[in-house]
Amino acid sequence: MAYQLLDGRAVAAQMNAEMADQVARLCAQGKRPPHLAAILVGHNAPSEAYVDAKVRACEKIGFLSTLIRYEDDVPQRQLLDKINELNHDSTIDGFIVQLPLPPHFSTDKVIEAIDYRKDVDGFHPVNVGRLALGLPCFRSATPAGILELLRRYRIPTQGKHCVVLGRSNIVGKPIANLMLQKDYPGDCSVTVCHSRSQNLHEICLSADILIVSLGVPNFVRHDMVKQGAVVIDVGITRLPNPDRPNGFQLTGDVLFDDVATHCSFITPVPGGVGPMTIASLMNNTLLARTKAVYP
Amino acid sequence: MAYQLLDGRAVAAQMNAEMADQVARLCAQGKRPPHLAAILVGHNAPSEAYVDAKVRACEKIGFLSTLIRYEDDVPQRQLLDKINELNHDSTIDGFIVQLPLPPHFSTDKVIEAIDYRKDVDGFHPVNVGRLALGLPCFRSATPAGILELLRRYRIPTQGKHCVVLGRSNIVGKPIANLMLQKDYPGDCSVTVCHSRSQNLHEICLSADILIVSLGVPNFVRHDMVKQGAVVIDVGITRLPNPDRPNGFQLTGDVLFDDVATHCSFITPVPGGVGPMTIASLMNNTLLARTKAVYP
Repeated sequence: MAYQLLDGRAVAAQMNAEMADQVARLCAQGKRPPHLAAILVGHNAPSEAYVDAKVRACEKIGFLSTLIRYEDDVPQRQLLDKINELNHDSTIDGFIVQLPLPPHFSTDKVIEAIDYRKDVDGFHPVNVGRLALGLPCFRSATPAGILELLRRYRIPTQGKHCVVLGRSNIVGKPIANLMLQKDYPGDCSVTVCHSRSQNLHEICLSADILIVSLGVPNFVRHDMVKQGAVVIDVGITRLPNPDRPNGFQLTGDVLFDDVATHCSFITPVPGGVGPMTIASLMNNTLLARTKAVYP
Repeated sequence: MAYQLLDGRAVAAQMNAEMADQVARLCAQGKRPPHLAAILVGHNAPSEAYVDAKVRACEKIGFLSTLIRYEDDVPQRQLLDKINELNHDSTIDGFIVQLPLPPHFSTDKVIEAIDYRKDVDGFHPVNVGRLALGLPCFRSATPAGILELLRRYRIPTQGKHCVVLGRSNIVGKPIANLMLQKDYPGDCSVTVCHSRSQNLHEICLSADILIVSLGVPNFVRHDMVKQGAVVIDVGITRLPNPDRPNGFQLTGDVLFDDVATHCSFITPVPGGVGPMTIASLMNNTLLARTKAVYP
């Protein structure tokens, strides 16, 4: 069957162009452009790459960005002091703490220290709770990016069965809560499955929309996908590949070549959910700048 | 097939006895018993009955209780001032605002005005968010009561398929988020369905645990229930019945006589989830008194 690619790179570029326009308008009014700060602790290679991509996205759109780096052994107290400083810095609209943090940190405490009105990652309990309640909030960037992708491709969702594989706090749970809301995209029956699920294949086979966020490369095969399904692959694992210049290759949770012919729409990896995540973080930062979520 | 009744009245009585013991121990140490306040606006008959049942539960267990009543036309400002007063009253451990409120209120604003550390109904965004994140919180009373019922009957849940009918903020969404956590009871695959769901019958038929919270009397029939399923009926609608002394009869969302023989376990209405809800509110109040959730 012919499938259509959900081209996250193209949609993200379109979003970026729209945001660049808005920034230009802000500046024409003599206003400061949006300003995102990122805190990076240590030298985890994927984290370095993500933060770098976020800083480059800011530059491309015309946002200001500030990168704050600490070594692995920075005391939690020092990080919390910096968060407190950013909370009170009126020149910073939003900021993120790149995860994962080294093991001596309490990630929960660090996230809760962020003023939820500047929590453009949408990880603070207030934003998580407001998302579940259907209230205005900063929506976590990956789920927000998935929604935007579905919206721009006008994929019907109402009443459909959306199956989410994975129950992480930053992808699985929030996308499930979003797809359940009485909104477009959304208004689905939503099932969340995970490593403990019985009848996983059977449940996946009943999905009209399958969102996979397990972090298990090539987990989903054609025998788990209904003909005509929409498949969103959030997985992005670095598998060693000596033929590549950087020695690895980004691999999704869906075995693309095996699954694609079963799908009506499918995201590639890379170039699907990844660019949408960064564009959504930028969008949250713009919303923070214009106080569109929290006046 | 023989089914077993999930006797919420009996389990709630057991919980109440345990809580009464704890209160007696607190008092023996010279400490004040837990103190719950309830705000009731107007004269909605079911609300009156619920608040009355909560006050009586307090008396039975040895909690202090305070009922604050307003007429329908009380200005929102006055209600918010009272909430602020209760937030700062150290003799009140927790309080609730009985819902629904009359139409001129913003329910969201009223709930957000409650200090989340006294929000024993678990409706504040901080508690909703922490519940989704798997962090300690006040869990909304009906979902917490359902979990306790499953726990006391030692019903296996790990890896099972739990289907929730209804996506309300106070039952459907929180019970779905709880049944998904890596805990007992929980660790299920969880599906949430609602009025817009396609293939509702088919999805219900795949449920090992079916939790029904639609508010549609007798909606679930035997052809929607798998042999051996566990059925939890949250529905409690007042249907007119001239043969009853008060002129109505409480009716669940499950047609009990039609469905029970398909079940391994089933809750009756009344006497199932209802008493568990009140016992769970009491439990939250005790947790507030002992600062077990928020130190």
